[in-house]
Amino acid sequence: MLHSNLSVNNKGNLCICGADCVELAKEFGTPLYVLDENYIRDRCHEYTESFKRYLPTGSMPLYASKALCIKAIYPILLEEDFGADVVSSGELYTALAAGFPAERVFFHGDNKLPEELDYAISKGVGCIVADNIDELKIIDMLASRHNVRQRVLLRLTPGIDPHTFDAVNTGTLNCQFGVAIESGQAEVFVAEALKCKNIDVLGFHCHIGSQIFSPEPFTMALDIMLDFMVRIRESMGYTASILNLGGGYGIRYTEADPIMDIYGCIEKTGEHLKMLCDRFDYPLPAIFKEPGRSIVADAGLTLYTAGYIKKVSDNTNFIIVDGGMADNPRYVLYASPYTIINVSRCEEKADQVYTIAGRSCETGDLIQENVPLPETRSGDLLAVLSTGAYNYSMSSNYNRFPKPPMIMLKDGRARVVVKKETFEDLIRNDL
Amino acid sequence: MLHSNLSVNNKGNLCICGADCVELAKEFGTPLYVLDENYIRDRCHEYTESFKRYLPTGSMPLYASKALCIKAIYPILLEEDFGADVVSSGELYTALAAGFPAERVFFHGDNKLPEELDYAISKGVGCIVADNIDELKIIDMLASRHNVRQRVLLRLTPGIDPHTFDAVNTGTLNCQFGVAIESGQAEVFVAEALKCKNIDVLGFHCHIGSQIFSPEPFTMALDIMLDFMVRIRESMGYTASILNLGGGYGIRYTEADPIMDIYGCIEKTGEHLKMLCDRFDYPLPAIFKEPGRSIVADAGLTLYTAGYIKKVSDNTNFIIVDGGMADNPRYVLYASPYTIINVSRCEEKADQVYTIAGRSCETGDLIQENVPLPETRSGDLLAVLSTGAYNYSMSSNYNRFPKPPMIMLKDGRARVVVKKETFEDLIRNDL
Repeated sequence: MLHSNLSVNNKGNLCICGADCVELAKEFGTPLYVLDENYIRDRCHEYTESFKRYLPTGSMPLYASKALCIKAIYPILLEEDFGADVVSSGELYTALAAGFPAERVFFHGDNKLPEELDYAISKGVGCIVADNIDELKIIDMLASRHNVRQRVLLRLTPGIDPHTFDAVNTGTLNCQFGVAIESGQAEVFVAEALKCKNIDVLGFHCHIGSQIFSPEPFTMALDIMLDFMVRIRESMGYTASILNLGGGYGIRYTEADPIMDIYGCIEKTGEHLKMLCDRFDYPLPAIFKEPGRSIVADAGLTLYTAGYIKKVSDNTNFIIVDGGMADNPRYVLYASPYTIINVSRCEEKADQVYTIAGRSCETGDLIQENVPLPETRSGDLLAVLSTGAYNYSMSSNYNRFPKPPMIMLKDGRARVVVKKETFEDLIRNDL
Repeated sequence: MLHSNLSVNNKGNLCICGADCVELAKEFGTPLYVLDENYIRDRCHEYTESFKRYLPTGSMPLYASKALCIKAIYPILLEEDFGADVVSSGELYTALAAGFPAERVFFHGDNKLPEELDYAISKGVGCIVADNIDELKIIDMLASRHNVRQRVLLRLTPGIDPHTFDAVNTGTLNCQFGVAIESGQAEVFVAEALKCKNIDVLGFHCHIGSQIFSPEPFTMALDIMLDFMVRIRESMGYTASILNLGGGYGIRYTEADPIMDIYGCIEKTGEHLKMLCDRFDYPLPAIFKEPGRSIVADAGLTLYTAGYIKKVSDNTNFIIVDGGMADNPRYVLYASPYTIINVSRCEEKADQVYTIAGRSCETGDLIQENVPLPETRSGDLLAVLSTGAYNYSMSSNYNRFPKPPMIMLKDGRARVVVKKETFEDLIRNDL
């Protein structure tokens, strides 16, 4: 199976975390977001353990909340010794509402509003990843007002193209995030930051992209960042204590994707860092990373019920499911690949080819095209795998579909972590 | 200006419906969805009046709710003698909650769930646009259970490509909606429908696409539909009393788009219909159409505040606004063109070129690229025009951004029609 937490039971049904998907659909209905807490914890453990083994003391993984920001994720992260990054005051609010300590939160964003910065500082947010000089000045002013010395990282763009999708590639020059090293603007940024009286500059941040399966883009980022850090030490006498390398490890959407070796990748990162720090006689900075997708994506799947099956031509055979672009907009947005399984016919031969369409009133509402499946009947359950990240978080109410509920499995037992939206929810703000 | 309800006042500020956008932003904050009720009513009037003049008695325009489904739109539609189409029980619920009569509602969808059909029939929905034979059988069974004779239209695909975007082109053969005429499946569909004891077949429905500016695609649809109707009359003795030609008239996103001549287009449709009915001696069917975008799109605009202005290279100069793909996903989805105005610098020369980025933590979060604007400063207000359709309705809470409020202007005076979401709203279903 695509992920190690998936199996087929003696009824021939797909199971996740040992739970029979047919039974889950019966109990909670469809569409249904399903998450496996054991799998999430295993992914967290890979990061914390490889960090302990291969990275300098003080290094810490931060969960990228934007992948899936719900209250239920934060107690797990806390128990797994994770920090969290948030990209809005709404995400920060969610983390705090779940009891996550503000001091373990890093606050990101290319246009954090002054009221958001004020809220974050007033709550004692651990670190703000400052995006640019104008923002630094606002942080400095607000920190003074709150009578604190605010810890910040400075977000830089190292100018690396890791050959991932344009839409999720944030390390190259022409992007709206951070300040470019290549253009010389980054040095001015650091000089200004060091002048701010109410700001404590902990170090630097860069993010080079998404769905990266090899260590090389990150060792390239280390080369560029260490070179910059050494130049800054020479010119300004400043030594960074933290280097945050952002997120980006890949997950398996299909069998064509490799299994990511987190330990190996972190080991290479640690070795390369030590080599560079030795060469430049630079004190080892703590390394932070921001996994989001690689913590929750393949811990999740979505269950749908097949509605009408429509053969419209020799080449096109639709299965229309009871969800679609409203709960999973990633195919419409990026033509993202997904693996889809007929839950109760796992062991039948996949000798048919289907287009899986959603039920929004929009031709583009597809979940996936050219999907090999066994002959599928109306009423069958389909599981779309690897939907734990960027599905619920990007979901909409297009066509006024209420958002599906989400359940979390632990040792095969389910609890609801996000209740299904009601019609009343949909109109609650309408006057 | 792009639309007739836009003007510039003596302060040099952009006005919509006579209201100064600077004042609106001051009173309601940004991002802000703004709708002009007078303009909506004018668009409705164009349809009802041209229908009266040029189409057979009983013809009626139906508002396509998916374009913007909020309670406040329905009392306007009712006063303007419109019906409504809905594509889910959530949309129907919204219309009914606003006091819209169920009998004026047409219920669409390629995968209406049995519980949705049951809800619609129990509420006395005017007409169900049946998508396929399997659905007909469910409607027939439910109508029997509720002891009613349910009115339906049969949705057909005429096989016309109106040369619009793939993603919003629903009239061609390879689509998940309706039953194809070309393949011969439509005749079986009709035969089955006429056999259902609890179903009253009013006629047929087709939808050929979106953003259509000329009458020809609709006269082509008439050719195909009338030919089919005549054949059905011959073979089954059935005469349709309603022909619903779907939606699709274009609106102006930019100056490159023509001004749509609704009167002229409806006149041509009426003439062509009469010619065909004369030729085939077919009783004139009532014509229904489903405008959505052309009712609300250019009645709306979105106000943003410019945050950081970032010159990252000679070619790229970002303005990062306080909204983005969460409140307007259409550029990320379709690279949709928009016209953008600097609200307080309308009369300055647009000698700069900007990329307008949103504040989601995603490189792809752009509202528009290559936008000519006057030199823009942080704090300036930007108006993105023609956002009344498919902006709020497709919006998400990505990055846990609360949805912006929406105001409706009437004779220049504003009222809130959708309240701003709160942080509490965001976590209300989290356990």
